[in-house]
Amino acid sequence: MPCTVDLVCIGNELLTGHTLNTNAHWLCRRLTELGAYVTRISTVHDDVDQMTSVIREAIRRRPDFIITTGGLGPTFDDRTLEALGRALNRKVAVNLQAMRLLKRHYARLQRNVAMTPPRIKMATIPERTEALPNPVGTAPGVLAKKGNTRIFVLPGVPQEMEAMFEGSVAPRVKREIGRERFYERSLKLSGLPESEIAPVIDRVMKRFPKVFIKSHPRGWATRRRPLLELQLSCWMNQKKSAKWLLDSAMSILLKEVAMHQRNS
Amino acid sequence: MPCTVDLVCIGNELLTGHTLNTNAHWLCRRLTELGAYVTRISTVHDDVDQMTSVIREAIRRRPDFIITTGGLGPTFDDRTLEALGRALNRKVAVNLQAMRLLKRHYARLQRNVAMTPPRIKMATIPERTEALPNPVGTAPGVLAKKGNTRIFVLPGVPQEMEAMFEGSVAPRVKREIGRERFYERSLKLSGLPESEIAPVIDRVMKRFPKVFIKSHPRGWATRRRPLLELQLSCWMNQKKSAKWLLDSAMSILLKEVAMHQRNS
Repeated sequence: MPCTVDLVCIGNELLTGHTLNTNAHWLCRRLTELGAYVTRISTVHDDVDQMTSVIREAIRRRPDFIITTGGLGPTFDDRTLEALGRALNRKVAVNLQAMRLLKRHYARLQRNVAMTPPRIKMATIPERTEALPNPVGTAPGVLAKKGNTRIFVLPGVPQEMEAMFEGSVAPRVKREIGRERFYERSLKLSGLPESEIAPVIDRVMKRFPKVFIKSHPRGWATRRRPLLELQLSCWMNQKKSAKWLLDSAMSILLKEVAMHQRNS
Repeated sequence: MPCTVDLVCIGNELLTGHTLNTNAHWLCRRLTELGAYVTRISTVHDDVDQMTSVIREAIRRRPDFIITTGGLGPTFDDRTLEALGRALNRKVAVNLQAMRLLKRHYARLQRNVAMTPPRIKMATIPERTEALPNPVGTAPGVLAKKGNTRIFVLPGVPQEMEAMFEGSVAPRVKREIGRERFYERSLKLSGLPESEIAPVIDRVMKRFPKVFIKSHPRGWATRRRPLLELQLSCWMNQKKSAKWLLDSAMSILLKEVAMHQRNS
């Protein structure tokens, strides 16, 4: 089994339709490329009770990793670390390593800033966790462990989240994953509605039990010819075998489709 | 309290990074416009166990509405109705109303189609639920009740989902919601980092406890001047009072910001 990741996205703006959740999409793509299996995405408000529940539920599912995005800044509504503390039953306290990261950040900006309460808040993290550097922004991230699950707490600003993922999360995920990777290929067909191709897909999947085939209706080529995208995917140890498997399944699928169209 | 909605999005493609979840974004925007409060979005794979758990968890949170998207088509991996049946402890069976909707759909297409198993599958829905018409596609939707929660099961194809939302969901949501609506306004500021504006936001929110102010870093105007988007929002019974409230909070906020910039 590939290693599993549970995503938790935090922010009112994601639930009022103000902001499209491109963070989850980016993370899913990168994690899948690395060979991890994203099992679930949960999106909740900047509300400590909701965040605490959602983190606790994710912990109970025992994934290898949990990644949260959002709620790390200096304002009163940034309360992810408080929620993480509650979910882990750990107190939050000023963390020296986080303070060092913050001071280094302000030094880099060559700004003489006082460590005011909103700034100290960003270094106030649950006990027995590790502060993670934020190479392009202010608030440090956090890495916590609970049982065999590692929890990464990342900011919601896309550039910061992406930089911290590449710097702190990806190397740790790479260490855990095995050799299995996700491979996919897709093709577009016109003139066949999903309900007609369904038995064809069934037959091909019985011949290639490791290949998952999914059909997505993509509108109409003409008034009478529906467009369908077929996506073939598999998890495999070797690129070569994956290529061979997907090529074979694709060719049988195309033959079956041609035969079906001749007969109907 | 505004009426609450829990969203459940189904589809492997949403978790492998193949597809950006624009359905959730569209639904959040429309529901918020109508005056509903989206409490959570959960995204899971086309896996009956995962779907069953996620629907059961949503039911346990007792929202007014649950809306699911995806997994309604004729292919083997479309198993949302099976999961809904399990979550509700109800058998699935061919539903006459759903069969009528399907036959009407095929008649409209002027195609003489046989009711093959993949087609009958789309009319096989949990007992004691209602089939909902799909004005632009094939698979009917479903409306189930559990306690005081109404569960709408919609397809994943965006055009179909949107048409069914407007035709079957929006009218029912409108009947349930009170007069409260969500209002928001935003402004952009440059030259103030979040950590400096945090106490200003705190002060304004203490003066206007009904207004929620959130700051979103939006990059940099120049190397030294960070860009910040401030979003002011409130839930109110009357448009006029909301406008007055947001206008007042906005003007006090701008005064405080100007004062802060003069002093620093």
